[in-house]
Amino acid sequence: MRFELLHSHKNSRLGRLVFNRGTIDTPAFMPVGTYGSVKTMSSEELNGIGYEIILSNTFHLMLRPGMEVIRSHQGLHDFMNWKRPILTDSGGFQVYSLKSLTKIDEEGVEFRSPVNGDLIKLTPELSISIQHDLSSDIVMVFDECTPYPVSEKHALSSMELSLRWAKRSMESFKALKKDQQSDSSLFGIIQGGVYPKLRAKCCEALKKIDFDGYALGGLAVGETEEERIRTLEAIGPYLPIDKPRYLMGVGTPMDIMKSVLLGIDMFDCVIPTRHARNGQLFTSEGRINLKNSRYRMDKSPVDEKCLCITCQNYTRSYLSHLHRCNEILGAHLSTIHNLQFYYSLMAEIRQAISKDSLDKLVEEYLSQGKID
Amino acid sequence: MRFELLHSHKNSRLGRLVFNRGTIDTPAFMPVGTYGSVKTMSSEELNGIGYEIILSNTFHLMLRPGMEVIRSHQGLHDFMNWKRPILTDSGGFQVYSLKSLTKIDEEGVEFRSPVNGDLIKLTPELSISIQHDLSSDIVMVFDECTPYPVSEKHALSSMELSLRWAKRSMESFKALKKDQQSDSSLFGIIQGGVYPKLRAKCCEALKKIDFDGYALGGLAVGETEEERIRTLEAIGPYLPIDKPRYLMGVGTPMDIMKSVLLGIDMFDCVIPTRHARNGQLFTSEGRINLKNSRYRMDKSPVDEKCLCITCQNYTRSYLSHLHRCNEILGAHLSTIHNLQFYYSLMAEIRQAISKDSLDKLVEEYLSQGKID
Repeated sequence: MRFELLHSHKNSRLGRLVFNRGTIDTPAFMPVGTYGSVKTMSSEELNGIGYEIILSNTFHLMLRPGMEVIRSHQGLHDFMNWKRPILTDSGGFQVYSLKSLTKIDEEGVEFRSPVNGDLIKLTPELSISIQHDLSSDIVMVFDECTPYPVSEKHALSSMELSLRWAKRSMESFKALKKDQQSDSSLFGIIQGGVYPKLRAKCCEALKKIDFDGYALGGLAVGETEEERIRTLEAIGPYLPIDKPRYLMGVGTPMDIMKSVLLGIDMFDCVIPTRHARNGQLFTSEGRINLKNSRYRMDKSPVDEKCLCITCQNYTRSYLSHLHRCNEILGAHLSTIHNLQFYYSLMAEIRQAISKDSLDKLVEEYLSQGKID
Repeated sequence: MRFELLHSHKNSRLGRLVFNRGTIDTPAFMPVGTYGSVKTMSSEELNGIGYEIILSNTFHLMLRPGMEVIRSHQGLHDFMNWKRPILTDSGGFQVYSLKSLTKIDEEGVEFRSPVNGDLIKLTPELSISIQHDLSSDIVMVFDECTPYPVSEKHALSSMELSLRWAKRSMESFKALKKDQQSDSSLFGIIQGGVYPKLRAKCCEALKKIDFDGYALGGLAVGETEEERIRTLEAIGPYLPIDKPRYLMGVGTPMDIMKSVLLGIDMFDCVIPTRHARNGQLFTSEGRINLKNSRYRMDKSPVDEKCLCITCQNYTRSYLSHLHRCNEILGAHLSTIHNLQFYYSLMAEIRQAISKDSLDKLVEEYLSQGKID
C-alpha cells in the first residue's frame, strides 16, 4: 500500500490510498459489511455508487460462514465478489461486547461462540492469520478495546496490553506476508481512553513499531462529543503526517466533518445502513423518519438534490408505505439512498479541502442546523 | 386491450396481449406484488429481467397504504414506478381467507380490517371502483371463491352468486370506463369447484356477459392435481378461442407447463418469490435448498445455464451463507434468480409452442424428473 498526501489545509488532509486492488480517495467513508455483505446491498450496487473500500468483521466471519468456506474462495473478495480493497477489523471489539467472554490473559481472549457454544481463544496471532485468509487489504492489530468510563490506571494497563499485542500482531503480519506479492497493510490502534497523556504515549510506542496507518480505537463508545474532540486534538500532533489516520466507528455526518477538520482520513460506521433499515433517511434538509405520518402522501423524492436510483424513481410516500409494511424493498431502497448520501458527503468534504474551505463549509452546516 | 392469437398447437396457444402500456407475450407468468412491490424487487429490476406484467392485490392495497395515497399518485403505476401493465385481483380471495370475515350476503362481503379493526363492506361495485383507482390494466370481477372440498349443491349456489356479482362487476366497469381513454379490460372468473358441469354452466353464463378474458378461480386451493387437470380439460371446449385464459394462483414450473398444454395463457403465483426468501431455488437440474449443508462449500453458481446477475456474480456457497445469517441480500439475490428462472421457463414454453413441440418438451422434463 502507498499513501499519498495530496493537499492539506490547517489540519484537514486530502489524500489517496493506493492498492493493487484499487485507489481510495481520502477522507473516505467505509460501509460496514459485517457478514460479508453491506446489509441489503450487492457488491455491484456498492460499486455503482462509487465506494472504493468496505469494512468487514473478522469476528463474525470466523463464526459464520467459518474460515474453511472463505479459504475455499481464496478470500473474502471472491466470496462476496467485491474486487476493490477491504479493511477488516481484528475481532477484538466484538469479543469485548460479548456476554460469553470467559477470560482475558496475556495470550489473548477466550470466549464461547454465540453461534454454537464452542470455546474459542482469539489471540493477536490468530486474528492476523484470519485476516490474512480473508485477503484483507487493511489488517487491524488485535487490541483490547478500553471501555468507557474507566479509571486512568485501568486505561494505562489496558493500553500497555494492547501495545504488547500490537507488537505480536506486527510479527505475525510480517511472517505471513513474507514471500507473497500482496500489498496488504497493517494499521496500529491507539488506545488510552479519554486520557491525552496515555493516548500520546500509546501513539509514540506504536510509531516505533512502524505501522502503515494509525487508527483511533476506544472512541464512539459512550464518551461525550467534547471528550472525543479533546482526545482527537490531543493526539493530532503525535500522528505521523505521512500515514493514514482512521477513526473507528464514527459516525454521523457532522461527527465526520468535525473529525476531518481534526485531521482524520478514514471512517466506518453502521449509521447509514442501520438508520436506512429503520426508515431514517439523510437529506440535504436534515434527517427524516419515513414512518412519520407526514410522509404518507408526500410525493417528493427523499432528497430533491440526490441522484441515487431511489430518489430518481420513488416518492417518500411509496417508501413510507414500504417501511410501514416491512417490505424488504423499503430497507434496500433506503440503504441505497443513505449510502449515496454518505458517499456524496465525503466527495463534498474532499472538494472543500481542495479549496481550503472545509472549515467554512462546516460552519455553514452548523449554522443551518440541517445536518446532524 | 387487444388479444392476438398468433399460433396454436393442439390445445397450446401462442398469443399477445396488447395494451397502451405495453405488450405481453403469452403464455405469460405474472410475479405477485401484493403491497405494490414484488417482494425484494424494484420495478427497474423486474423490467431488467423482462417482465411485461405484474399482479397486485386490491385487498392489501385498500388497507395499506389506503386508496387516498394511491389516488394521490394517479394510480398504482406511478406509486410503484412500474410503467407496464398491471393485473389486479378483486380482493375476494383474500377476504375469504380472513378469520375476521363477518357476513356474506347478496350485496357483498363484510369483514373487519386486520390492520385497524374497521368494519369494511366489499361489494362488486367497490372492488371495481378500487381497481379503477389503482389504474389496473386487467381488472378482475368480484366473486366468491368456492372453497374445497365442497358439496355440489354448495358449489352451485356459490357459483350462481358469483355470476350475479360478475354482472354487477361488468356494469360498474362499463360505467367507470365511459368517457375515458383507458384500454383497461375486465376478466370474468369461472367458478364451480371440481364439478365439470357447473364449470361449463358458469363459463357459458359468463360468455353471455362478454368479458375481455376468462380466469379459472377456485383452483390451487387444495384439490388434487388430477382433479385440477380434469377440471381444466372439462372447461377447455367451452372457453372462447379468441380471449385470453388465466389460471389464478398456479403454480410450480410443471403445473404451468401442463396447464399450457391444456390451453392456459396466463399465470400468477407466489412460489418463485416465497421460495426464494426461504432459500429454495429453481435450477435446470431441479430445485435446491440453499440451507442444506451440501451447499456450504459449493463454489458453482446456482445454475450454470442461468444468465441472471445472481448466477453471474455469486456462488451457491455465498448465497447459502447469506440465508443462514438471514441477510436481506440473500432473499433479494435468490428472488432475482427464481424470477429469472420463471421468465426463462415461459420463454422456453413459447418457443416450444412455436415449434409445435411443447408436448415433447414436457414429456422430456417429466422423464428427467428434474423439474417439479
